[in-house]
Amino acid sequence: MRNCLVAQSGGPTVAINASLAGVIDGVLKSNYFDNIYGSVNGIQGVLHENLIDLQRTFNKSDRSIERLKVSPSMYLGSCRYKLNSLESDSSEYEKIFSIFLKHEIKAFFYIGGNDSMDTVAKLSNYAKLKGYDISILGIPKTIDNDLCVTDHTPGYGSAAKYVATSLLEIAHDTYIYDTQSVTIVEIMGRDAGWLTAASALARNEYSHAPHLIYLPETVFDVNSFINDVKIQLTKQQNVIIAVSEGIKTADGKYVSAQSAKTDIFGHAQLSGTGKYLEMLVNDQIGCKVRSIELNVLQRSAMHCASLTDLNESFALGVTAVQLAEQEVTNAMLVIKRVSDYPYQYKISCTDVADVANDTKYVPSEWIHADGNDVLQDFITYAKPLICGEPMLEYKDGLPYYLPIRHLL
Amino acid sequence: MRNCLVAQSGGPTVAINASLAGVIDGVLKSNYFDNIYGSVNGIQGVLHENLIDLQRTFNKSDRSIERLKVSPSMYLGSCRYKLNSLESDSSEYEKIFSIFLKHEIKAFFYIGGNDSMDTVAKLSNYAKLKGYDISILGIPKTIDNDLCVTDHTPGYGSAAKYVATSLLEIAHDTYIYDTQSVTIVEIMGRDAGWLTAASALARNEYSHAPHLIYLPETVFDVNSFINDVKIQLTKQQNVIIAVSEGIKTADGKYVSAQSAKTDIFGHAQLSGTGKYLEMLVNDQIGCKVRSIELNVLQRSAMHCASLTDLNESFALGVTAVQLAEQEVTNAMLVIKRVSDYPYQYKISCTDVADVANDTKYVPSEWIHADGNDVLQDFITYAKPLICGEPMLEYKDGLPYYLPIRHLL
Repeated sequence: MRNCLVAQSGGPTVAINASLAGVIDGVLKSNYFDNIYGSVNGIQGVLHENLIDLQRTFNKSDRSIERLKVSPSMYLGSCRYKLNSLESDSSEYEKIFSIFLKHEIKAFFYIGGNDSMDTVAKLSNYAKLKGYDISILGIPKTIDNDLCVTDHTPGYGSAAKYVATSLLEIAHDTYIYDTQSVTIVEIMGRDAGWLTAASALARNEYSHAPHLIYLPETVFDVNSFINDVKIQLTKQQNVIIAVSEGIKTADGKYVSAQSAKTDIFGHAQLSGTGKYLEMLVNDQIGCKVRSIELNVLQRSAMHCASLTDLNESFALGVTAVQLAEQEVTNAMLVIKRVSDYPYQYKISCTDVADVANDTKYVPSEWIHADGNDVLQDFITYAKPLICGEPMLEYKDGLPYYLPIRHLL
Repeated sequence: MRNCLVAQSGGPTVAINASLAGVIDGVLKSNYFDNIYGSVNGIQGVLHENLIDLQRTFNKSDRSIERLKVSPSMYLGSCRYKLNSLESDSSEYEKIFSIFLKHEIKAFFYIGGNDSMDTVAKLSNYAKLKGYDISILGIPKTIDNDLCVTDHTPGYGSAAKYVATSLLEIAHDTYIYDTQSVTIVEIMGRDAGWLTAASALARNEYSHAPHLIYLPETVFDVNSFINDVKIQLTKQQNVIIAVSEGIKTADGKYVSAQSAKTDIFGHAQLSGTGKYLEMLVNDQIGCKVRSIELNVLQRSAMHCASLTDLNESFALGVTAVQLAEQEVTNAMLVIKRVSDYPYQYKISCTDVADVANDTKYVPSEWIHADGNDVLQDFITYAKPLICGEPMLEYKDGLPYYLPIRHLL
């Protein structure tokens, strides 16, 4: 028997099930693998031998794979689990490979972000050391878009589309009153500002919102910020600001950490970056001000997904299967951009060591010298990634998603 | 000349432009009125004689009216302006009617919520007093669904769909980890819990989230709440709670007011209801807990609108024109439900005095006796209102909306 195994790890995106659907589709359409198993809750499912036979649920003759492609979150569940180094503790490695051997696993596909690629690297190295004949491949995903080598990451395009769409709708909401206001929208991204930058895609011929954009890549200065806001308020009634949760002051501290207070129960409490800036504007400018945190919908709003993103994520899964058939291992799949307009890409792979434990930032030449906006190069890069809308199935007015496996 | 005037007022909904589109469509398809004007920023636009000729922008031969129908927020801008009583100050009334006379306005359509209906009532009474020949009609809208007589309000169905869709996607996001968590989702509604109740529509065969629902109609007890959460945590790993921003304790105070502290700048600061409950769960239970505030997207997310809602809102606008042609005045249009399944309704009107300055609450018999859930009668009522999805036009991955008029 020649079987394969797939798992998902890290935080959700709306595209991570599309990659799983691609892997399943690739396996079912090829005759190379006899069976495909899914591990529940990432690598922890392997450690606990919590595997499920995916061929019982998914097949070529119905819409099950297509439905998986457009279901948010992670069908197989997730984990946040980093393997110990082999030197410090080999027992987990022995356990994992005993499960691989028992189930005749010849390929392991791990769909995840940075930490998951660390797992791919460690397992690949162990397999090489022990002479196990197995392909171990990483399929990237993260809304943060902060993985190296790949042009962008699956999940980013959809999150970017949600951010830009929401920003546009918040702008429409804000513009209706004839009174001065400041609206601060806090967007995910602790270290890299890719998702916050995507708010710039909301701009069009009648609205320049967001009027100011602050990324973690640039040092955040409170006085410059207040000055920026005051200048913008002379230009328009309603100023809309996109800010990354991860912006930091010159001392390297998160802006949100400035707001540390004890809450009413006496516990230390951070207010959040947007809330802190709201209090700051209220104190120093005094106009009507509101902060909005887009929160987890950035990574789970399939109802606002990018079809480009879903199609690419699916294609990465299919290609991973082909690479496994060619016995490629220790690699992460990457997207190489061929052209911006028309948008074209191809899929290849890279040594996972080039990716794991590294972060890709928004290039400084794509950020305005004043640190309060992004430049056209970013727009050119990001615009193709949010295009296209998937046809979702609806039932009683709500998207009809596939449930997460362990809920059944 | 026989002209008419239309204006929008109060907080935005995604359906308020659909009613405007209906009024314009009704006027253009009839030969009764010679011109249709729009007042910019509600009744304030009349006071400032800031009127625009809508026939310059909208006509029957292109898609302009259809595009207005699926654009969020308020094309004509808004105001929050309550007329003085006639007894205390008649000058505003004289000004408004001088503008009506100057522009030969024989019908005034005011699309808005409770305060707007107060304006309709006051202007109607003044017209009757002075013997002015004019139809003054209110077209309801509010995401809060708290207007009397009408089965529901335009704007509610779309907001309810956004709340239910988001809740479903938040549930998918929450379920993936194998660790205990509590997620609190704060939903708009200061007095009535209709929108928070709509979160129950997210329930399906694999997810009962939200597991607890708290409305302003029921006294909120902190100890009962903590007890409810503890019980739910024995039943599932991930407990999801929908809570109205307007819940109050037995002393009639908003729960959010319990969290009043001075912020880091020394200003009084309320944390918000969800944030307060997050702190409370953290303090008294201690598991992983997060709060999410859906914020203004509830009323502006056209990308997640209910087609039923948009079609009804449009139909109300069309019917308002027909009623004006019949010289009906001092009335608000209402939706009468004919049947739940299949969902059928008809449009009629009611004396605006029956509606203005009154609030419709979720009936107590639709709320669970424990005050922590809604019952099937609510689901039966609300489910038809969120059905159907409009076909939006997209451009470069974003919905292609009509700009708000004064931005041009």
